[in-house]
Amino acid sequence: MLVDGDHPIHWVDPLRLPLADIGDFSIALGDIAASFTEIERQAAAVKHLVALGGDHSITLPLLRALAKRCGPVALIHFDAHVDTWRENFGQTFAHGSVFYHAIADGLVDPHRMIQIGVRSPVEREIYNWTIAQGVTMITAHDVHERGVAQAAETIRQVAGAGPVYLSFDIDVLDPAFAPGTGTPEVGGLASWQAQAIIRRLRGLQFIGMDVVEVCPAYDVAEITALAGATMAWEYLCLLAAARD
Amino acid sequence: MLVDGDHPIHWVDPLRLPLADIGDFSIALGDIAASFTEIERQAAAVKHLVALGGDHSITLPLLRALAKRCGPVALIHFDAHVDTWRENFGQTFAHGSVFYHAIADGLVDPHRMIQIGVRSPVEREIYNWTIAQGVTMITAHDVHERGVAQAAETIRQVAGAGPVYLSFDIDVLDPAFAPGTGTPEVGGLASWQAQAIIRRLRGLQFIGMDVVEVCPAYDVAEITALAGATMAWEYLCLLAAARD
Amino acid sequence: MLVDGDHPIHWVDPLRLPLADIGDFSIALGDIAASFTEIERQAAAVKHLVALGGDHSITLPLLRALAKRCGPVALIHFDAHVDTWRENFGQTFAHGSVFYHAIADGLVDPHRMIQIGVRSPVEREIYNWTIAQGVTMITAHDVHERGVAQAAETIRQVAGAGPVYLSFDIDVLDPAFAPGTGTPEVGGLASWQAQAIIRRLRGLQFIGMDVVEVCPAYDVAEITALAGATMAWEYLCLLAAARD
Amino acid sequence: MLVDGDHPIHWVDPLRLPLADIGDFSIALGDIAASFTEIERQAAAVKHLVALGGDHSITLPLLRALAKRCGPVALIHFDAHVDTWRENFGQTFAHGSVFYHAIADGLVDPHRMIQIGVRSPVEREIYNWTIAQGVTMITAHDVHERGVAQAAETIRQVAGAGPVYLSFDIDVLDPAFAPGTGTPEVGGLASWQAQAIIRRLRGLQFIGMDVVEVCPAYDVAEITALAGATMAWEYLCLLAAARD
Amino acid sequence: MLVDGDHPIHWVDPLRLPLADIGDFSIALGDIAASFTEIERQAAAVKHLVALGGDHSITLPLLRALAKRCGPVALIHFDAHVDTWRENFGQTFAHGSVFYHAIADGLVDPHRMIQIGVRSPVEREIYNWTIAQGVTMITAHDVHERGVAQAAETIRQVAGAGPVYLSFDIDVLDPAFAPGTGTPEVGGLASWQAQAIIRRLRGLQFIGMDVVEVCPAYDVAEITALAGATMAWEYLCLLAAARD
Amino acid sequence: MLVDGDHPIHWVDPLRLPLADIGDFSIALGDIAASFTEIERQAAAVKHLVALGGDHSITLPLLRALAKRCGPVALIHFDAHVDTWRENFGQTFAHGSVFYHAIADGLVDPHRMIQIGVRSPVEREIYNWTIAQGVTMITAHDVHERGVAQAAETIRQVAGAGPVYLSFDIDVLDPAFAPGTGTPEVGGLASWQAQAIIRRLRGLQFIGMDVVEVCPAYDVAEITALAGATMAWEYLCLLAAARD
Repeated sequence: MLVDGDHPIHWVDPLRLPLADIGDFSIALGDIAASFTEIERQAAAVKHLVALGGDHSITLPLLRALAKRCGPVALIHFDAHVDTWRENFGQTFAHGSVFYHAIADGLVDPHRMIQIGVRSPVEREIYNWTIAQGVTMITAHDVHERGVAQAAETIRQVAGAGPVYLSFDIDVLDPAFAPGTGTPEVGGLASWQAQAIIRRLRGLQFIGMDVVEVCPAYDVAEITALAGATMAWEYLCLLAAARD
Repeated sequence: MLVDGDHPIHWVDPLRLPLADIGDFSIALGDIAASFTEIERQAAAVKHLVALGGDHSITLPLLRALAKRCGPVALIHFDAHVDTWRENFGQTFAHGSVFYHAIADGLVDPHRMIQIGVRSPVEREIYNWTIAQGVTMITAHDVHERGVAQAAETIRQVAGAGPVYLSFDIDVLDPAFAPGTGTPEVGGLASWQAQAIIRRLRGLQFIGMDVVEVCPAYDVAEITALAGATMAWEYLCLLAAARD
Repeated sequence: MLVDGDHPIHWVDPLRLPLADIGDFSIALGDIAASFTEIERQAAAVKHLVALGGDHSITLPLLRALAKRCGPVALIHFDAHVDTWRENFGQTFAHGSVFYHAIADGLVDPHRMIQIGVRSPVEREIYNWTIAQGVTMITAHDVHERGVAQAAETIRQVAGAGPVYLSFDIDVLDPAFAPGTGTPEVGGLASWQAQAIIRRLRGLQFIGMDVVEVCPAYDVAEITALAGATMAWEYLCLLAAARD
Repeated sequence: MLVDGDHPIHWVDPLRLPLADIGDFSIALGDIAASFTEIERQAAAVKHLVALGGDHSITLPLLRALAKRCGPVALIHFDAHVDTWRENFGQTFAHGSVFYHAIADGLVDPHRMIQIGVRSPVEREIYNWTIAQGVTMITAHDVHERGVAQAAETIRQVAGAGPVYLSFDIDVLDPAFAPGTGTPEVGGLASWQAQAIIRRLRGLQFIGMDVVEVCPAYDVAEITALAGATMAWEYLCLLAAARD
Repeated sequence: MLVDGDHPIHWVDPLRLPLADIGDFSIALGDIAASFTEIERQAAAVKHLVALGGDHSITLPLLRALAKRCGPVALIHFDAHVDTWRENFGQTFAHGSVFYHAIADGLVDPHRMIQIGVRSPVEREIYNWTIAQGVTMITAHDVHERGVAQAAETIRQVAGAGPVYLSFDIDVLDPAFAPGTGTPEVGGLASWQAQAIIRRLRGLQFIGMDVVEVCPAYDVAEITALAGATMAWEYLCLLAAARD
Repeated sequence: MLVDGDHPIHWVDPLRLPLADIGDFSIALGDIAASFTEIERQAAAVKHLVALGGDHSITLPLLRALAKRCGPVALIHFDAHVDTWRENFGQTFAHGSVFYHAIADGLVDPHRMIQIGVRSPVEREIYNWTIAQGVTMITAHDVHERGVAQAAETIRQVAGAGPVYLSFDIDVLDPAFAPGTGTPEVGGLASWQAQAIIRRLRGLQFIGMDVVEVCPAYDVAEITALAGATMAWEYLCLLAAARD
């Protein structure tokens, strides 16, 4: 056995030392329940939430925090996927089941919920359940063929008056515009289309937003990170316009 | 001379050993004629051909196999290039001369052949020869400026009734959507445009398809591979719809 | 101290040796004034200028050379940024202040100057100054929503008769189409849009062009370099058409 | 609701059609038990196994197939990680627990098992359990500082006579040499070191090998794929040498 | 002029709104003096500094904060460059002049300062000045040809007793191991060499460290970020060992 | 047929126009004989040749130019491949046959020719022919296991007195250090090893060098280009040292 004192394997223990000035990380890696509790706790303390993900599962604790404050919210959901599966390959809480739980737990009002950019294949029963709840869906091909103005008008009608949350899954963009994500789907929106839709949402009563599923390890020249940051900037400009 | 027994150069011979459980590769690398014969033989044995390239030269033996079964076929050809050069820099059979031979050998019916997405510069004589055979051409700029519906309608008219083959050169897509290819051309289709055109081809009598010119060494986050796979998926959905 | 004769640090001196057959580089790295003088001197000797940048600051000495020959020129300026800042983070001459100087020094006629593709945030005063000089601006969103034909028509009206210079900053393209650049901005043009606009500029009296801000270190599979080269090719085709 | 007949969402159903010439895929995505059964079944039919992964979890069914034929085998295990965790974030069978099960189920003889290149941090109890089973460990730093000849000699001693399996996790290489993998660890082997060790293993009684954890979506210019293929080639050359 | 109310250019102003829950950014972009003051202020409040860059210029305010607390410190400086230029292309405070100022201002004790990995060409006068101050230099080629143990021993002798600061410029690594940096130099250290040297520095009286010059826009599969994070981890393990 | 005047296909003709200030390109793409003649003509006019490739086939006309001036030269050849095949997949003159012709035509003296870094598999007959001519070979594994000093000493002995040409195929470096090349081979040199060998060649009578096979389309963050440029810089430093 060749291991010796000069170059041992590092134990995982060191990071558990009370290095008070670095931080105390008491949630075990992979403990989703505890992570959700902590995310909800921190989100509850923020006056106006702008969350930069993480995968889409974080939206569930964020919505829990907001629903406690405002009741069920309207949801504008940009995504390539419906994310209303009951589970993800055996995991109850995960990035594909986030809106099943959000609807089932009454965090969002499905009649004021709209999904934009959906294009991944989906089982008929999942699709049917989602539509049956009252959710509206605009596929990516709808945006391409009918235009951003009509998409924005439909969104405004569905969201209506009352608190609105914007959840922006970066995979709503085509992989050309956002290669840095975990479950890319061909045929998505161009960045300008997403911007043009968001800019037309002026006047809605936004109470928070997130940008999720940006995965730098797959990115190129940071263009996905830049696209995500730009969507948050567009949102901030909506807020700024609302204060004028 | 420093070479010794511990770390010799490997001879090419080992792979020639009769490693029966690994396979026997008897075609010499670069032997195009033998490769074509083998590709045609294997294609002839497939009930419904979905071929994933390879460079575009493989389409010639695939069409040979199909023409023996069906006679001259209609061809829907997505590509940035006309691929009707008589030769490629001195090579008779190569990715740029595939459809010169397919037309000259009567494998396709040029009056039922249409090229979509062409945009590379081309010599006048090559263009004139192609058009004179009866081939229809829709440039990439035609698709951008006149839309996918008109492109699809023209394709349907040209292909008409009878067996149709779909050859999808990934470089029909813009390099933003498909960087992983050998002869990219700026100004190409977005992935959604190719999808939207294919989806409108329901009801044609498809007998096979290929996706060619995907070159992973140039790819980024596998987005080109994903685009190619998605086009094959769209084709499978056409087949599935035809069985319903 | 471990440095020894076998592997010293290399001194910068060697490249200063009079290696006559390699070239004599007498301008110190970072000496902008001397660089501009040399660029202007070389540009003045070219009959029809097609310059491949370099960052956008090189356009200033190029315009100096041309204005001495033709007087103030019309400018068709593709860019994500206005580039009319008075300075860049303390530097007087830099890629963001090039057209402030070009206007202030009378090298271009601002009433015959048009910017296409602008979308980066900008201070109100910079925007107001630019417009007040008479410059016309077509944002990237204008191109997306109103189309390339209208953009080209406006460009033709603004440029009018007389000598026209085309300055193409590659960041006018969306980062999906041109990741290889230093200050990318989301929401930009597709390559085909830029091509379609340039192709409609036939008949203008072009006297030169540049493609700038291509930065290979950020590029992917050379797609940005290819986009830049294609824009120069489109320009050459305009020249060729003018001679027919 | 904008969805219409021209561009519906695709259902997942089409791939379930009996497209007999394409194949029948009856194992549900994510069904690990069924996947393992199928992998073991296919591996059992191969005369001399050279498996190209997949993640490291596939080695478990491969070893099951081999152990049924040969009894507990010696294992030469190149990896950045010990992979003897009892579970992975709640999953019993996964890429980090493969050798816990292989040892616990008696598929490998831990006294004839050696791990080369280990360097990820690890909990003391996992390390202690692994060593207590009789496993030998050569860290990456051992290889760097003591050399490839000593590493190879130790491997030969541990593996001894009798059937030997080689499992090559590509993350044993440094991320510079193998960026295309899911759990990279800095400080790993250079490709030449892995080759130089394998070349010195001539004469061992090899019964199979795998190369796992190559993830093309993270790769660059296919260099990771090339490294993995080269390791399989080195193994084939060992087999060829054994037949001479 | 095509700009209209639907898609105006965004003004830079919105981020200047008092969005109290997002933060107040009162330092103008490019105001180096104010940035240094703020960095020093924040660093002074940290008990044990582990700073993740930014470019190398930030080390100057970090050292100012530490020198006020401890007096002139020993410096272990991993870098491809000497960084003792008096200025960078006209800028007084920048990533290439940081240690000129640190020495000139008495923040570090040059007789207890050592540079490891230097290999970029340098003017003789800059080299001579640096050596004349008492700085020790180990080139990258020294590490490659004499080994990590000798390098570490020299570092320990130079640093001696008393407070030691570790500044790790990621470009000390070869571009193969750290492509994501702004001024890469061929011929650098392998990651394992840097790790092996750091691991041998146990027992020195470390008071802080930084990892600088990681530039994600040039990175690939996050391998540079991972290398930087691993160096910080190695440092934390030194601290943990010191507490045992 | 949809083609119209607004967006025709561009003909290849425009570049054939006499655009005198851009240049006249009279050699047809793919005309190897004419290209070789032109390359030799230009090389003959250079006082001290430092050629930046291109693929390795260009070394043949470069050596023709030099051999006319100096007679058969010594050759120091860094490469992963022997490049002494009689042909490349049917092409007589190509990057794999360059040194077969150089030896056969008496341009190099094979007894003063040495290949460093060879590691690709090779047919026995090609290897035997090369050695039989008198060529010396140092494999990449020789360099790794015996060190750079011994390699350099052997090179000096083989090259001896008289004119020496240095041909540096970038694929001598491992793909980790030089991903941007067309035929990468795993197990190659680190950049520092190549540098350390070149630095030890001081005093040889160099008459020219080339760096070939750098292919930017496969490169990452320009690290391959940087490696190639650094090797040319090392060569220039040898020349500068010779003048001191």
